[in-house]
Amino acid sequence: MDVSVERLRDDIESTAEFGAIDVETGRGRSVFTGSEADERTRNYLVSRLDEAGLTTSVDAVGNIVGRWTPESADPAAPPVAAGSHLDSVPEGGIFDGPLGVYAGLEAVRAMQECDLRPNRPIDVVCFTEEEGTRFDTPLLGSKVASGTLPVDEALDLTDDRGERLADALSGIGYHGEDRLAAEEWDAWLELHIEQGTRLEDRDVPVGVVTSITGITHCRVEISGEANHAGTTPMGGRRDALLGAAEFALDVEDAATELVETASDTAVATVGRTDVSPNGTNVVPGHVELGLDIRDVDASSMAYLVRRARESLARIERERGVETSLDRYVDIQPVAMSDRCRDAIHAAGEHTDVGTVDLHSGAGHDTMEVARVTDAGLLFAPSRDGISHNPREWTEWADCARATRVLAAGLARLATS
Amino acid sequence: MDVSVERLRDDIESTAEFGAIDVETGRGRSVFTGSEADERTRNYLVSRLDEAGLTTSVDAVGNIVGRWTPESADPAAPPVAAGSHLDSVPEGGIFDGPLGVYAGLEAVRAMQECDLRPNRPIDVVCFTEEEGTRFDTPLLGSKVASGTLPVDEALDLTDDRGERLADALSGIGYHGEDRLAAEEWDAWLELHIEQGTRLEDRDVPVGVVTSITGITHCRVEISGEANHAGTTPMGGRRDALLGAAEFALDVEDAATELVETASDTAVATVGRTDVSPNGTNVVPGHVELGLDIRDVDASSMAYLVRRARESLARIERERGVETSLDRYVDIQPVAMSDRCRDAIHAAGEHTDVGTVDLHSGAGHDTMEVARVTDAGLLFAPSRDGISHNPREWTEWADCARATRVLAAGLARLATS
Repeated sequence: MDVSVERLRDDIESTAEFGAIDVETGRGRSVFTGSEADERTRNYLVSRLDEAGLTTSVDAVGNIVGRWTPESADPAAPPVAAGSHLDSVPEGGIFDGPLGVYAGLEAVRAMQECDLRPNRPIDVVCFTEEEGTRFDTPLLGSKVASGTLPVDEALDLTDDRGERLADALSGIGYHGEDRLAAEEWDAWLELHIEQGTRLEDRDVPVGVVTSITGITHCRVEISGEANHAGTTPMGGRRDALLGAAEFALDVEDAATELVETASDTAVATVGRTDVSPNGTNVVPGHVELGLDIRDVDASSMAYLVRRARESLARIERERGVETSLDRYVDIQPVAMSDRCRDAIHAAGEHTDVGTVDLHSGAGHDTMEVARVTDAGLLFAPSRDGISHNPREWTEWADCARATRVLAAGLARLATS
Repeated sequence: MDVSVERLRDDIESTAEFGAIDVETGRGRSVFTGSEADERTRNYLVSRLDEAGLTTSVDAVGNIVGRWTPESADPAAPPVAAGSHLDSVPEGGIFDGPLGVYAGLEAVRAMQECDLRPNRPIDVVCFTEEEGTRFDTPLLGSKVASGTLPVDEALDLTDDRGERLADALSGIGYHGEDRLAAEEWDAWLELHIEQGTRLEDRDVPVGVVTSITGITHCRVEISGEANHAGTTPMGGRRDALLGAAEFALDVEDAATELVETASDTAVATVGRTDVSPNGTNVVPGHVELGLDIRDVDASSMAYLVRRARESLARIERERGVETSLDRYVDIQPVAMSDRCRDAIHAAGEHTDVGTVDLHSGAGHDTMEVARVTDAGLLFAPSRDGISHNPREWTEWADCARATRVLAAGLARLATS
């Protein structure tokens, strides 16, 4: 059994055309749920699943599954599944998501071409909106597939202009039926880029994830008073942006301190800042911030949220502003199943590709799948660790090596 | 001669309907050059000028003039002019600008109704884009009228989507001909709200401006590296937003220090912040800031720009980011003419309305007019000093009192 790097590369590069952004360095894409770029991205996947002879279905929240049922398999047996997502962050890279979906498909194509006789069906999966960019709910599709998020609730999610997920999906023809049920899978594997430098630093081609970091997202609001920048004396201001500036620096201090003293895997980021009214000659009256906190240890995440609240309380006192913090995403850290980890390591040995245990600092759809069935996650190296950026890059040879391990791991799980 | 507070209020409230924003407290408007709200705002003014029998003209950059030539006047004599602007900042108040335009018109209507015999024409003026909101050039229309900004250069200004001023004006039917020539006026008066609390604090109904603050606007850019918020360790980041946060706080420190030690009229504001990519789960790669610096003393403005540059140099060193500062607006402080100041004080005495000398912390079209002819600026009180905000408010009785002084001042200048 061997995978075709040409086919894999062609699929990823074709996908990179949809929502492509114009950049000088690297290749970027912006693909958000329900956009034209999303429609074209999905249509391309469905056409590729069809070409490989898979049976495609789309669930109510737009999760796409292509099922391969080999003659050797019991069609009623719980399938083994592999996949990832095809949406992106704003101005993201071309590997984050697409590699996992098309590596899953390439693994099936490779299995079809050899005399392997799996006794279970194999599902190739694309989850809707892993990044949470448009509907502000990371892991949206996999949360529905795991049962964490009820279908009706998901369909009622609205974007920042009030449009519903159901309507966004209908608009591109991907509001299907029923719920993709991850609990019916015998096992799940996801290949993803590392988005860090540990594989590169150790010169190992595949990482086997031990546990996935928890993720907290907080919406932080700071309200002062918008006023004229020329006539409001320095001492008479309630400037929301200056409060936000202190907050962002406090968050950095708290996380850096935690990394140095207690948990070197902790990170905290103010990634989104929306200022109102946002005119050069107006003292900012209101700022909304998006805060991201992660660690493999839930207690250190709770500690950082506490430090964030303390910072806001101080800023309220000192600047006469009002603040609020809404912890609207709170995903616990998750361990991967031993059975899947063992299968990946064994696949690495079988294909002569080195593997190493790592934790995952990024959330992945695998977190949700792991709640309801045996799940594993493997990493391919990211050049310079850069991701969520057009300079994100993984060498094609590294993509192929990791896909070989994924294919061997899936084959092992599907013939057991 | 008496002014009608009802007519004045009706004009200001009618204007407030165009571009009105939905707010819980106060009344707000967003009127930007070339928008539908701008078109309706201008059409209303033209209809009111027509009703009062004024001869209306529109110049190449959309400046609107209504001329009243009384029978007693020499039509060829240099006119006396009064006015202000009708555009707004984003989510601004309803008095900033409209009060001055409609007080000018009301002054003419009041003069028409009594037996005053001016020997010069009187112009009622509305300048295009005083706030600089869309084409990023504060005092746009008055800069053209003073000759500071050539007509062709103004028409080629583009907004942030690349649309030209000429096209924005053509789109609403206000791309007229020639240049309104402020140097041809014998004298100019502008009534504006104070946008501060000094009149309120002293309980005086009219301020007579001695000099207008200078204004510097700088575009500040900070470039780090966008990256994944979960997989980029705290120590391995080049976060542009954290650099911007330090910069905003440094600017506040420098201005506060200057106020306490050398110049209590100095102010500095980071009013605009645009973050890219601006996703909660992405380390910010790029931030663009709008910095506003003002004082009645040019050397203290230069000092604050120097401090801003020093802050950026430090942030570059400490955070490994790249920065730039472009001082794209640099307007020098301007003194008002003694003749106009005397006319306003005398008008106050004549109408039994108290006046007091003040400096202006806000830039106004009068700054530009003052470069080419005698100019005066008078203030009406702002409740709590609030402006550039839907809570901006001036009591109607205060509007009427100040309009009475404006009318008497214009009459004095036009009959001299």
